[in-house]
Amino acid sequence: MSKLVECIPNFSVSKEVDPVVFQGLVDVANSVPGCTLFDVQSDGSHNRCVFTLIGSPEGIEEVAFRLCKKASETIDMTKHVGQHPRMGATDVIPFVPQTKDVTVEDCVEMSKRVAKRIWDELQIPSFLYEDSATRPERRNLAACRKGQFEGMPEKLLQEDWAPDFGERKIHPTAGITAIGARMPLVAFNVNLDTDNLEIAKNIAKAIRGSSGGFKYRMAVGIMMEERNIAQVSMNMVNYEGTPLYYAYEMIRALADRYGVRIIGTEIVGLTPAKALIDCAEYYLKIENFHCHEQVLEYHLIDMK
Amino acid sequence: MSKLVECIPNFSVSKEVDPVVFQGLVDVANSVPGCTLFDVQSDGSHNRCVFTLIGSPEGIEEVAFRLCKKASETIDMTKHVGQHPRMGATDVIPFVPQTKDVTVEDCVEMSKRVAKRIWDELQIPSFLYEDSATRPERRNLAACRKGQFEGMPEKLLQEDWAPDFGERKIHPTAGITAIGARMPLVAFNVNLDTDNLEIAKNIAKAIRGSSGGFKYRMAVGIMMEERNIAQVSMNMVNYEGTPLYYAYEMIRALADRYGVRIIGTEIVGLTPAKALIDCAEYYLKIENFHCHEQVLEYHLIDMK
Repeated sequence: MSKLVECIPNFSVSKEVDPVVFQGLVDVANSVPGCTLFDVQSDGSHNRCVFTLIGSPEGIEEVAFRLCKKASETIDMTKHVGQHPRMGATDVIPFVPQTKDVTVEDCVEMSKRVAKRIWDELQIPSFLYEDSATRPERRNLAACRKGQFEGMPEKLLQEDWAPDFGERKIHPTAGITAIGARMPLVAFNVNLDTDNLEIAKNIAKAIRGSSGGFKYRMAVGIMMEERNIAQVSMNMVNYEGTPLYYAYEMIRALADRYGVRIIGTEIVGLTPAKALIDCAEYYLKIENFHCHEQVLEYHLIDMK
Repeated sequence: MSKLVECIPNFSVSKEVDPVVFQGLVDVANSVPGCTLFDVQSDGSHNRCVFTLIGSPEGIEEVAFRLCKKASETIDMTKHVGQHPRMGATDVIPFVPQTKDVTVEDCVEMSKRVAKRIWDELQIPSFLYEDSATRPERRNLAACRKGQFEGMPEKLLQEDWAPDFGERKIHPTAGITAIGARMPLVAFNVNLDTDNLEIAKNIAKAIRGSSGGFKYRMAVGIMMEERNIAQVSMNMVNYEGTPLYYAYEMIRALADRYGVRIIGTEIVGLTPAKALIDCAEYYLKIENFHCHEQVLEYHLIDMK
């Protein structure tokens, strides 16, 4: 079995604004055998790009470090302009387990090794966030990044905001990086047959605030302007603890109170198969199903 | 992307009755690089074993031929005794596409090349069955096998039963083999909250006979003695044409007529992820879902 880890580093540069620097990062992303650059997203107005890499734990650690190094050599945060909040040339590096023999704990260890190395070799400090966080308030990326690049020198001097690795000062041009491990996210949106945004907002608030053990990174009500319908938009951060069908059935029940129905849903981007297979298992009432043993694709992945 | 094909050859020997011959086949199954012997089932009363192999199309063709050769050298059908119907030392060789870039048509071509080779080199004739069949009545394996090893010399002389490859006479000790391509099967059973077997039989009959385009190799009503409940047992032969949720919802509707509910279901053995993901897509009303692009595991398989 080959262990696979996903890494989704975000850099403060875009193909649109600086194609040469952007291409330099793409080249580095392709430089480590056993790691595949799987997807690249770039946004000019954000002046930010997001790489999706998958590979062996060792390969992913190496490519994450090399990318950080390249970004620190080619991106100058003192000159960076973009709409997206950011605090470093390499702004954030999440590590996500992708095969069943890799745990979040393994990814936490990876994040700490990479954080140590980028301090030791590049003098870039870092916060550990998400499941790597050393204190509860650092789990949230937005809390770590608050103040952004410009506010970081002062923030790092506050009692509670010493970096997890490195001294209390940013790298002069590369800033500071958030590094952490997390479970795969599933972006799951539920469309309602109403143009009343308040209903979607109320539902989002109710499921966020649920005491039933629901766990979403984010659940908000938004308008789908082009279809004139309201949507509950969620990031499912732990689809094993809070399956998609929990969210679907809870929203269905809450919407019913308003006489509103679910007219459709969407999954944005990638999802692990199991997030959907668990739903089939629920709706088809499948007994004694052993997903990793009975689903062929897991064996195909294992065989390689 | 690596193309993968599954092959599930059945041999007229068992570990229980003749461990030496059985082991010889296992050794051959492991002899082709790029092919993995994934599962072995052996049944002493049937005196039969089933290998599950997955590998590249070229590797699978080669291992299928080598296994046929080894079986013809070590199994003597004139001495074979077992409860399961059989007509050859290698009784049947199905080829099943397992990655999205391999089609059933590719597997049909594989089946024909292997059939030609075992005639040319081993003088074992064969029938092409399932999606490789050259006439409708040969799609069904049981129809091909009717008469079994002992009845084959006479059957092959009948006007309609010339082998697809080879002359109208069996190999004296290896008999004749059925070779064909098919889609992956999903064995899907639905349990009813009744001890009335007739209800399960009626439902099975109704869905078999459906004019709604349903396609099952088999749908029968059976008793689950240990739980004292009736079950509709199905082999879904084309889960893309007839998804599992069609079967589930149809059985639910038909059972309702008797005041009977579905209390659970089961999937026996392996299933492709997509057979279940399609169900999640239906029940969660997911719009515009592109399974092969959005499900991570397909990319993990592609990457290898």
